[in-house]
Amino acid sequence: MNSDAPTRPGTPEDVRGACRLGTWTDHTAGLAPGFAQANLVILPADQAADFREFCERNPKPCPLLDVTAPGDPVPSRIAPSADIRSDLPRFRVWEHGKVIDEPTDVTGLWREDLVGFLIGCSFTFEAALLNEGLEVRHQACETNVPMYRTSVECDPAGVFRGNLVVSMRPYGPADVVRAVEITSRFPEVHGSPVHVGLPGLLGIEDLDRPDYGDAVPVDKNELPVFWACGVTPQAVLEEAAVPFAITHAPGCMFVSDVRDEDLGSGGFFSSDV
Amino acid sequence: MNSDAPTRPGTPEDVRGACRLGTWTDHTAGLAPGFAQANLVILPADQAADFREFCERNPKPCPLLDVTAPGDPVPSRIAPSADIRSDLPRFRVWEHGKVIDEPTDVTGLWREDLVGFLIGCSFTFEAALLNEGLEVRHQACETNVPMYRTSVECDPAGVFRGNLVVSMRPYGPADVVRAVEITSRFPEVHGSPVHVGLPGLLGIEDLDRPDYGDAVPVDKNELPVFWACGVTPQAVLEEAAVPFAITHAPGCMFVSDVRDEDLGSGGFFSSDV
Repeated sequence: MNSDAPTRPGTPEDVRGACRLGTWTDHTAGLAPGFAQANLVILPADQAADFREFCERNPKPCPLLDVTAPGDPVPSRIAPSADIRSDLPRFRVWEHGKVIDEPTDVTGLWREDLVGFLIGCSFTFEAALLNEGLEVRHQACETNVPMYRTSVECDPAGVFRGNLVVSMRPYGPADVVRAVEITSRFPEVHGSPVHVGLPGLLGIEDLDRPDYGDAVPVDKNELPVFWACGVTPQAVLEEAAVPFAITHAPGCMFVSDVRDEDLGSGGFFSSDV
Repeated sequence: MNSDAPTRPGTPEDVRGACRLGTWTDHTAGLAPGFAQANLVILPADQAADFREFCERNPKPCPLLDVTAPGDPVPSRIAPSADIRSDLPRFRVWEHGKVIDEPTDVTGLWREDLVGFLIGCSFTFEAALLNEGLEVRHQACETNVPMYRTSVECDPAGVFRGNLVVSMRPYGPADVVRAVEITSRFPEVHGSPVHVGLPGLLGIEDLDRPDYGDAVPVDKNELPVFWACGVTPQAVLEEAAVPFAITHAPGCMFVSDVRDEDLGSGGFFSSDV
């Protein structure tokens, strides 16, 4: 153990507090186990209505866990004591579809017209897969999940349009069935896969060359299984080239107070957020 | 319309009545829509305990809907007004693992030690697939479902042992997911698939040469999806070569009073039957 390594915070409050103080600026994978993490997109109110519509039309890549009121940095539904301006390890600031900065706090950039979107993340269903005895290949490889831009167009809304990004996890022919059954219980975190077995039909030419993350080995007795991915909104922000946006930095998620298991019923959020 | 064609009976009572009178001796596919049909196996009490154990150890091919008391021909749980000796269109009489007769009534063969096993049938989940807008290929082709003996051994019990028989329905890569989600709601009628996509791993060499039923076309953009099949018990009876047994004739099922939709919860039979 390197005594200089930062202590890994254990509860959602601990993680968010360490982010706020600037003592945790790293990836959040494995932090606060058992609690759902979320992708973050912040947009001015004049784009927010269209983006919300985009998420609602594309619930598999963009399952909404919470939407903040304009100017209010508190995601009251999933973490009423949190502040989305400071409680993530690292952010990305976007101008006209380009990342211009990666700060650890965006309080100084806050405006009264900004709206935060908290979008479900596959960490929750990966925990469920592991709990049921299935392997999650990129975790076994200790790498980031392989992600691919597909040829499948999302349903557009206003300026927001773009192609679906998918993550891939390989499974044997019987475990494919179990992986579908397990992840279909978690619609708020991408839910069941969108595709099994024939990546060419998604426009993916080479599994060994993902567009994001790292390649993983796929055995000849396995099928690649594809889930809609929370990176889709960032690809869409690039395409839309809106004047201003803030997101989390890749892997540096918002840690919520919602337990993974409470998302397993598919009914945690019974009405719109 | 051929005026000599028998009228298609509409309710479970109608179907069973027509079988009892001998006016319906044909397949039952499509009869009494909305009601679950069942495979039938009748064995002497001295083999019945082992066979029941076999079914309980292999619930995917042999999901038990009802088991009659020795000597009692009434399946009281799924059709309390029925008689399994007369209320199916056609039976098979087995001696030492061979079919020796295919009568339309077995009342004359009934004995005080016989036990009837009613085993769930895929007609129920095929109705659900169609209701959700998925094609069922062999129905579109107006043929019998293709079935294959696999290299997968069932969990044996007493004299009962043998390999799993599977049925196959092809689906595109997104519909594979939906087919798993839909059929997983029906555990009493084989439930979710046992295998997706790589038939060689099941010991199936040529999809165009099924061991039972008829081949169906599989497009290059589709995957073959395999479900455990209710023909498995007949393959096991052949292997066990018990002195005496009666089953339904292929396609000539028992029509129960249970609604397909009541099997969809997975909890219709909350305790052992």
